[in-house]
Amino acid sequence: MPSSPHCLRNGGTTSPRATNPNFHSTVSVQKLRRLNALILALRLSTFCFSFASAVFMATNSRSGSSTWVDFDAFRFVVAANAIVALYSLFAVGASVWEILKGTTLFPEAVQVWFDFGHDQGFSFLVLSANTAGTALARDLGRNETCTSVSAFCVQSYISIALGFVGFLFLAFISLLSGFRVACFIITGSRFHM
Amino acid sequence: MPSSPHCLRNGGTTSPRATNPNFHSTVSVQKLRRLNALILALRLSTFCFSFASAVFMATNSRSGSSTWVDFDAFRFVVAANAIVALYSLFAVGASVWEILKGTTLFPEAVQVWFDFGHDQGFSFLVLSANTAGTALARDLGRNETCTSVSAFCVQSYISIALGFVGFLFLAFISLLSGFRVACFIITGSRFHM
Repeated sequence: MPSSPHCLRNGGTTSPRATNPNFHSTVSVQKLRRLNALILALRLSTFCFSFASAVFMATNSRSGSSTWVDFDAFRFVVAANAIVALYSLFAVGASVWEILKGTTLFPEAVQVWFDFGHDQGFSFLVLSANTAGTALARDLGRNETCTSVSAFCVQSYISIALGFVGFLFLAFISLLSGFRVACFIITGSRFHM
Repeated sequence: MPSSPHCLRNGGTTSPRATNPNFHSTVSVQKLRRLNALILALRLSTFCFSFASAVFMATNSRSGSSTWVDFDAFRFVVAANAIVALYSLFAVGASVWEILKGTTLFPEAVQVWFDFGHDQGFSFLVLSANTAGTALARDLGRNETCTSVSAFCVQSYISIALGFVGFLFLAFISLLSGFRVACFIITGSRFHM
Protein backbone atom coordinates (compact mmCIF):
# COMPACT_ATOMS: atom_id res chain seq x y z
CA MET A 1 0.00 0.00 0.00
CA PRO A 2 1.42 3.40 -0.90
CA SER A 3 2.32 5.72 1.94
CA SER A 4 3.48 9.29 1.79
CA PRO A 5 4.57 11.74 4.49
CA HIS A 6 0.97 13.06 4.39
CA CYS A 7 -0.55 9.76 5.43
CA LEU A 8 -1.98 9.15 8.87
CA ARG A 9 -2.23 5.41 9.38
CA ASN A 10 -3.55 4.02 12.59
CA GLY A 11 -6.21 1.84 14.16
CA GLY A 12 -5.18 -1.82 14.02
CA THR A 13 -1.47 -1.25 13.59
CA THR A 14 0.55 1.16 15.65
CA SER A 15 3.73 2.63 14.30
CA PRO A 16 5.77 5.39 15.96
CA ARG A 17 4.55 7.71 13.20
CA ALA A 18 0.90 6.96 13.81
CA THR A 19 1.08 7.70 17.51
CA ASN A 20 3.17 10.82 17.11
CA PRO A 21 1.11 13.67 15.70
CA ASN A 22 4.19 15.92 15.75
CA PHE A 23 5.35 14.03 12.69
CA HIS A 24 2.94 16.14 10.63
CA SER A 25 3.35 19.76 9.75
CA THR A 26 1.43 22.22 11.92
CA VAL A 27 -0.86 23.14 9.02
CA SER A 28 -1.85 19.49 8.44
CA VAL A 29 -2.53 18.93 12.13
CA GLN A 30 -4.70 22.05 12.26
CA LYS A 31 -6.64 20.98 9.16
CA LEU A 32 -7.11 17.51 10.62
CA ARG A 33 -8.36 18.94 13.91
CA ARG A 34 -10.83 21.19 12.10
CA LEU A 35 -12.13 18.29 9.99
CA ASN A 36 -12.58 16.10 13.06
CA ALA A 37 -14.37 18.92 14.87
CA LEU A 38 -16.67 19.43 11.85
CA ILE A 39 -17.57 15.72 11.77
CA LEU A 40 -18.23 15.74 15.52
CA ALA A 41 -20.47 18.81 15.24
CA LEU A 42 -22.43 17.26 12.36
CA ARG A 43 -22.86 14.00 14.25
CA LEU A 44 -24.08 15.84 17.34
CA SER A 45 -26.58 17.80 15.23
CA THR A 46 -27.83 14.60 13.61
CA PHE A 47 -28.29 13.06 17.03
CA CYS A 48 -30.21 16.06 18.39
CA PHE A 49 -32.61 16.30 15.48
CA SER A 50 -33.26 12.56 15.11
CA PHE A 51 -33.74 12.16 18.85
CA ALA A 52 -36.11 15.13 18.99
CA SER A 53 -38.03 13.78 16.00
CA ALA A 54 -38.41 10.32 17.57
CA VAL A 55 -39.47 11.78 20.93
CA PHE A 56 -41.95 14.20 19.35
CA MET A 57 -43.60 11.41 17.40
CA ALA A 58 -43.50 8.86 20.22
CA THR A 59 -45.30 11.25 22.57
CA ASN A 60 -47.90 12.07 19.92
CA SER A 61 -51.02 10.58 21.53
CA ARG A 62 -54.30 12.28 22.29
CA SER A 63 -56.23 10.31 24.92
CA GLY A 64 -59.39 8.76 23.54
CA SER A 65 -58.69 9.67 19.93
CA SER A 66 -55.59 9.38 17.71
CA THR A 67 -52.26 7.87 18.65
CA TRP A 68 -49.14 7.41 16.54
CA VAL A 69 -49.12 3.64 17.16
CA ASP A 70 -52.22 3.24 14.98
CA PHE A 71 -50.42 4.53 11.86
CA ASP A 72 -47.69 2.36 10.37
CA ALA A 73 -45.93 5.27 8.65
CA PHE A 74 -45.64 7.07 12.01
CA ARG A 75 -44.26 3.91 13.61
CA PHE A 76 -41.71 3.86 10.78
CA VAL A 77 -40.77 7.50 11.55
CA VAL A 78 -40.21 6.69 15.24
CA ALA A 79 -38.20 3.55 14.48
CA ALA A 80 -35.98 5.11 11.80
CA ASN A 81 -35.24 8.26 13.81
CA ALA A 82 -34.57 6.26 16.97
CA ILE A 83 -32.14 4.02 15.08
CA VAL A 84 -30.35 7.04 13.60
CA ALA A 85 -30.23 8.74 17.01
CA LEU A 86 -28.69 5.63 18.60
CA TYR A 87 -26.17 5.25 15.80
CA SER A 88 -25.30 8.96 15.97
CA LEU A 89 -24.70 8.72 19.69
CA PHE A 90 -22.31 5.83 19.11
CA ALA A 91 -20.64 7.74 16.26
CA VAL A 92 -20.22 10.80 18.50
CA GLY A 93 -18.41 8.55 20.97
CA ALA A 94 -16.19 7.15 18.21
CA SER A 95 -15.50 10.68 16.97
CA VAL A 96 -14.53 11.92 20.44
CA TRP A 97 -12.27 8.87 20.83
CA GLU A 98 -10.63 9.71 17.49
CA ILE A 99 -10.04 13.33 18.56
CA LEU A 100 -8.66 12.41 21.97
CA LYS A 101 -6.56 9.36 21.11
CA GLY A 102 -5.63 10.26 17.54
CA THR A 103 -6.59 6.77 16.34
CA THR A 104 -9.83 5.29 15.09
CA LEU A 105 -11.94 3.08 17.39
CA PHE A 106 -11.87 0.12 15.00
CA PRO A 107 -8.97 -0.64 12.64
CA GLU A 108 -8.89 2.10 10.03
CA ALA A 109 -10.13 -0.01 7.08
CA VAL A 110 -13.11 -1.26 9.10
CA GLN A 111 -13.86 2.19 10.51
CA VAL A 112 -14.07 4.05 7.18
CA TRP A 113 -16.31 1.40 5.60
CA PHE A 114 -18.42 1.11 8.76
CA ASP A 115 -18.96 4.88 8.86
CA PHE A 116 -19.74 5.22 5.19
CA GLY A 117 -22.02 2.18 4.99
CA HIS A 118 -24.07 3.26 7.99
CA ASP A 119 -24.19 6.94 7.01
CA GLN A 120 -25.37 6.18 3.49
CA GLY A 121 -27.75 3.39 4.48
CA PHE A 122 -29.29 5.27 7.38
CA SER A 123 -29.70 8.46 5.34
CA PHE A 124 -31.76 6.44 2.83
CA LEU A 125 -33.69 4.86 5.71
CA VAL A 126 -34.52 8.12 7.47
CA LEU A 127 -35.44 9.89 4.22
CA SER A 128 -37.73 7.01 3.36
CA ALA A 129 -39.40 7.07 6.79
CA ASN A 130 -39.92 10.81 6.77
CA THR A 131 -41.37 10.74 3.26
CA ALA A 132 -43.79 7.97 4.24
CA GLY A 133 -44.71 10.04 7.30
CA THR A 134 -45.28 13.11 5.11
CA ALA A 135 -47.52 11.16 2.72
CA LEU A 136 -49.61 9.93 5.64
CA ALA A 137 -49.74 13.35 7.35
CA ARG A 138 -50.92 14.99 4.13
CA ASP A 139 -53.55 12.30 3.77
CA LEU A 140 -54.72 12.82 7.35
CA GLY A 141 -54.89 16.56 6.68
CA ARG A 142 -57.64 15.91 4.13
CA ASN A 143 -59.55 13.53 6.43
CA GLU A 144 -61.60 14.40 9.46
CA THR A 145 -58.73 13.35 11.81
CA CYS A 146 -56.94 16.69 11.56
CA THR A 147 -60.01 18.89 11.91
CA SER A 148 -61.08 17.14 15.13
CA VAL A 149 -57.63 16.76 16.77
CA SER A 150 -55.43 19.35 15.10
CA ALA A 151 -52.73 19.16 17.83
CA PHE A 152 -52.06 15.56 16.77
CA CYS A 153 -51.39 16.64 13.19
CA VAL A 154 -49.28 19.65 14.14
CA GLN A 155 -47.11 17.51 16.40
CA SER A 156 -46.59 14.95 13.63
CA TYR A 157 -45.64 17.74 11.16
CA ILE A 158 -43.04 19.04 13.63
CA SER A 159 -41.64 15.56 14.20
CA ILE A 160 -41.32 14.94 10.46
CA ALA A 161 -39.70 18.34 9.88
CA LEU A 162 -37.12 17.60 12.60
CA GLY A 163 -36.50 14.24 10.96
CA PHE A 164 -35.82 15.91 7.60
CA VAL A 165 -33.27 18.25 9.19
CA GLY A 166 -31.58 15.22 10.76
CA PHE A 167 -31.54 13.61 7.30
CA LEU A 168 -29.80 16.66 5.79
CA PHE A 169 -27.02 16.50 8.40
CA LEU A 170 -26.65 12.74 7.92
CA ALA A 171 -26.53 13.07 4.12
CA PHE A 172 -23.78 15.68 4.47
CA ILE A 173 -21.81 13.41 6.81
CA SER A 174 -22.20 10.56 4.33
CA LEU A 175 -20.48 12.73 1.69
CA LEU A 176 -17.55 13.30 4.06
CA SER A 177 -17.30 9.65 5.07
CA GLY A 178 -17.60 8.61 1.41
CA PHE A 179 -14.64 10.86 0.69
CA ARG A 180 -12.73 9.22 3.56
CA VAL A 181 -13.37 5.78 2.03
CA ALA A 182 -12.12 6.96 -1.37
CA CYS A 183 -9.05 8.54 0.27
CA PHE A 184 -8.36 5.31 2.07
CA ILE A 185 -8.66 3.26 -1.15
CA ILE A 186 -6.48 5.63 -3.17
CA THR A 187 -3.81 6.82 -0.74
CA GLY A 188 -4.03 4.21 2.02
CA SER A 189 -4.96 6.88 4.57
CA ARG A 190 -8.36 8.26 5.52
CA PHE A 191 -7.14 11.84 5.22
CA HIS A 192 -6.11 13.77 2.16
CA MET A 193 -4.11 16.83 3.00
CA MET B 1 -2.10 19.45 -9.54
CA PRO B 2 -0.27 16.14 -9.17
CA SER B 3 -0.13 13.88 -12.19
CA SER B 4 1.23 10.38 -12.52
CA PRO B 5 1.60 8.02 -15.48
CA HIS B 6 -1.71 6.48 -14.33
CA CYS B 7 -3.68 9.67 -14.84
CA LEU B 8 -6.10 10.19 -17.69
CA ARG B 9 -6.75 13.88 -18.07
CA ASN B 10 -9.11 15.13 -20.71
CA GLY B 11 -12.21 17.13 -21.36
CA GLY B 12 -11.43 20.84 -21.46
CA THR B 13 -7.73 20.56 -22.13
CA THR B 14 -6.21 18.34 -24.75
CA SER B 15 -2.66 17.13 -24.40
CA PRO B 16 -0.95 14.54 -26.60
CA ARG B 17 -1.22 12.13 -23.67
CA ALA B 18 -4.93 12.62 -23.23
CA THR B 19 -5.74 11.94 -26.85
CA ASN B 20 -3.41 8.98 -27.11
CA PRO B 21 -4.80 5.98 -25.28
CA ASN B 22 -1.73 3.94 -26.20
CA PHE B 23 0.11 5.91 -23.57
CA HIS B 24 -1.42 3.63 -20.95
CA SER B 25 -0.50 0.05 -20.33
CA THR B 26 -2.78 -2.58 -21.86
CA VAL B 27 -4.03 -3.64 -18.42
CA SER B 28 -5.07 -0.09 -17.52
CA VAL B 29 -6.85 0.40 -20.82
CA GLN B 30 -8.72 -2.88 -20.36
CA LYS B 31 -9.72 -1.92 -16.80
CA LEU B 32 -10.87 1.48 -18.00
CA ARG B 33 -12.93 -0.06 -20.79
CA ARG B 34 -14.55 -2.48 -18.36
CA LEU B 35 -15.40 0.32 -15.90
CA ASN B 36 -16.91 2.45 -18.65
CA ALA B 37 -18.94 -0.52 -19.89
CA LEU B 38 -20.18 -1.17 -16.32
CA ILE B 39 -21.31 2.44 -15.91
CA LEU B 40 -23.04 2.35 -19.30
CA ALA B 41 -24.86 -0.89 -18.39
CA LEU B 42 -25.99 0.53 -15.04
CA ARG B 43 -27.21 3.74 -16.66
CA LEU B 44 -29.16 1.76 -19.26
CA SER B 45 -30.74 -0.37 -16.53
CA THR B 46 -31.70 2.73 -14.56
CA PHE B 47 -33.30 4.20 -17.67
CA CYS B 48 -35.28 1.05 -18.43
CA PHE B 49 -36.67 0.65 -14.91
CA SER B 50 -37.47 4.32 -14.33
CA PHE B 51 -39.09 4.65 -17.73
CA ALA B 52 -41.15 1.49 -17.19
CA SER B 53 -42.18 2.73 -13.75
CA ALA B 54 -43.30 6.13 -15.08
CA VAL B 55 -45.20 4.55 -17.97
CA PHE B 56 -46.88 1.95 -15.74
CA MET B 57 -48.08 4.63 -13.35
CA ALA B 58 -49.05 7.15 -16.04
CA THR B 59 -51.28 4.59 -17.76
CA ASN B 60 -52.89 3.61 -14.46
CA SER B 61 -56.45 4.83 -15.04
CA ARG B 62 -59.66 2.88 -14.78
CA SER B 63 -62.45 4.64 -16.68
CA GLY B 64 -65.15 5.97 -14.41
CA SER B 65 -63.32 5.15 -11.18
CA SER B 66 -59.73 5.69 -10.00
CA THR B 67 -56.97 7.45 -11.89
CA TRP B 68 -53.40 8.19 -10.81
CA VAL B 69 -53.86 11.95 -11.35
CA ASP B 70 -56.18 12.10 -8.33
CA PHE B 71 -53.43 11.01 -5.92
CA ASP B 72 -50.55 13.42 -5.31
CA ALA B 73 -48.12 10.66 -4.22
CA PHE B 74 -48.73 8.85 -7.54
CA ARG B 75 -48.14 12.10 -9.45
CA PHE B 76 -44.87 12.36 -7.53
CA VAL B 77 -43.94 8.80 -8.59
CA VAL B 78 -44.58 9.62 -12.27
CA ALA B 79 -42.68 12.92 -12.11
CA ALA B 80 -39.65 11.57 -10.26
CA ASN B 81 -39.31 8.47 -12.42
CA ALA B 82 -39.77 10.47 -15.62
CA ILE B 83 -37.06 12.93 -14.52
CA VAL B 84 -34.69 10.08 -13.68
CA ALA B 85 -35.47 8.34 -17.00
CA LEU B 86 -34.72 11.55 -18.94
CA TYR B 87 -31.50 12.17 -17.01
CA SER B 88 -30.43 8.53 -17.48
CA LEU B 89 -31.02 8.79 -21.22
CA PHE B 90 -28.78 11.86 -21.35
CA ALA B 91 -26.20 10.11 -19.16
CA VAL B 92 -26.23 7.07 -21.47
CA GLY B 93 -25.42 9.43 -24.34
CA ALA B 94 -22.58 11.02 -22.35
CA SER B 95 -21.29 7.58 -21.43
CA VAL B 96 -21.32 6.37 -25.04
CA TRP B 97 -19.51 9.59 -26.04
CA GLU B 98 -16.87 8.90 -23.37
CA ILE B 99 -16.36 5.34 -24.60
CA LEU B 100 -16.15 6.32 -28.29
CA LYS B 101 -14.12 9.53 -28.03
CA GLY B 102 -12.10 8.72 -24.91
CA THR B 103 -12.92 12.15 -23.44
CA THR B 104 -15.75 13.40 -21.26
CA LEU B 105 -18.60 15.41 -22.80
CA PHE B 106 -18.05 18.41 -20.50
CA PRO B 107 -14.65 19.41 -19.11
CA GLU B 108 -13.58 16.70 -16.68
CA ALA B 109 -14.03 18.74 -13.47
CA VAL B 110 -17.57 19.73 -14.48
CA GLN B 111 -18.44 16.22 -15.64
CA VAL B 112 -17.48 14.39 -12.45
CA TRP B 113 -19.37 16.87 -10.21
CA PHE B 114 -22.34 16.96 -12.60
CA ASP B 115 -22.58 13.16 -12.58
CA PHE B 116 -22.20 12.80 -8.84
CA GLY B 117 -24.55 15.64 -7.92
CA HIS B 118 -27.31 14.39 -10.17
CA ASP B 119 -26.84 10.72 -9.26
CA GLN B 120 -26.96 11.42 -5.53
CA GLY B 121 -29.74 14.00 -5.72
CA PHE B 122 -31.93 11.96 -8.04
CA SER B 123 -31.44 8.79 -6.02
CA PHE B 124 -32.81 10.66 -2.98
CA LEU B 125 -35.63 12.06 -5.13
CA VAL B 126 -36.71 8.73 -6.60
CA LEU B 127 -36.46 6.92 -3.24
CA SER B 128 -38.60 9.62 -1.70
CA ALA B 129 -41.21 9.41 -4.46
CA ASN B 130 -41.42 5.63 -4.34
CA THR B 131 -41.75 5.62 -0.56
CA ALA B 132 -44.56 8.19 -0.72
CA GLY B 133 -46.20 6.01 -3.38
CA THR B 134 -45.83 2.94 -1.17
CA ALA B 135 -47.40 4.72 1.81
CA LEU B 136 -50.36 5.76 -0.33
CA ALA B 137 -50.73 2.33 -1.97
CA ARG B 138 -50.76 0.63 1.46
CA ASP B 139 -53.34 3.11 2.62
CA LEU B 140 -55.51 2.46 -0.45
CA GLY B 141 -55.16 -1.26 0.20
CA ARG B 142 -57.06 -0.79 3.47
CA ASN B 143 -59.76 1.39 1.89
CA GLU B 144 -62.58 0.33 -0.39
CA THR B 145 -60.63 1.56 -3.47
CA CYS B 146 -58.60 -1.63 -3.82
CA THR B 147 -61.45 -4.05 -3.27
CA SER B 148 -63.58 -2.43 -5.99
CA VAL B 149 -60.80 -1.81 -8.59
CA SER B 150 -58.01 -4.20 -7.71
CA ALA B 151 -56.31 -3.82 -11.12
CA PHE B 152 -55.60 -0.17 -10.26
CA CYS B 153 -53.80 -1.15 -7.07
CA VAL B 154 -51.87 -4.00 -8.65
CA GLN B 155 -50.64 -1.73 -11.43
CA SER B 156 -49.49 0.89 -8.91
CA TYR B 157 -47.65 -1.78 -6.90
CA ILE B 158 -45.82 -2.90 -10.06
CA SER B 159 -44.93 0.68 -10.97
CA ILE B 160 -43.53 1.36 -7.49
CA ALA B 161 -41.56 -1.90 -7.47
CA LEU B 162 -40.00 -0.98 -10.84
CA GLY B 163 -39.17 2.44 -9.41
CA PHE B 164 -37.37 0.86 -6.44
CA VAL B 165 -35.25 -1.30 -8.76
CA GLY B 166 -34.36 1.85 -10.73
CA PHE B 167 -33.40 3.50 -7.43
CA LEU B 168 -31.05 0.61 -6.55
CA PHE B 169 -29.22 0.95 -9.87
CA LEU B 170 -28.99 4.73 -9.47
CA ALA B 171 -27.72 4.45 -5.88
CA PHE B 172 -25.02 2.06 -7.09
CA ILE B 173 -24.02 4.46 -9.89
CA SER B 174 -23.87 7.30 -7.36
CA LEU B 175 -21.27 5.30 -5.38
CA LEU B 176 -19.16 4.93 -8.54
CA SER B 177 -19.50 8.58 -9.53
CA GLY B 178 -18.76 9.64 -5.94
CA PHE B 179 -15.58 7.63 -6.16
CA ARG B 180 -14.73 9.38 -9.45
CA VAL B 181 -15.14 12.77 -7.76
CA ALA B 182 -12.85 11.73 -4.91
CA CYS B 183 -10.31 10.36 -7.42
CA PHE B 184 -10.44 13.62 -9.29
CA ILE B 185 -9.90 15.68 -6.13
CA ILE B 186 -7.04 13.50 -4.88
CA THR B 187 -5.15 12.49 -8.01
CA GLY B 188 -6.36 15.05 -10.55
CA SER B 189 -7.81 12.30 -12.74
CA ARG B 190 -11.22 10.65 -12.63
CA PHE B 191 -9.73 7.18 -12.74
CA HIS B 192 -7.68 5.36 -10.17
CA MET B 193 -5.83 2.41 -11.64
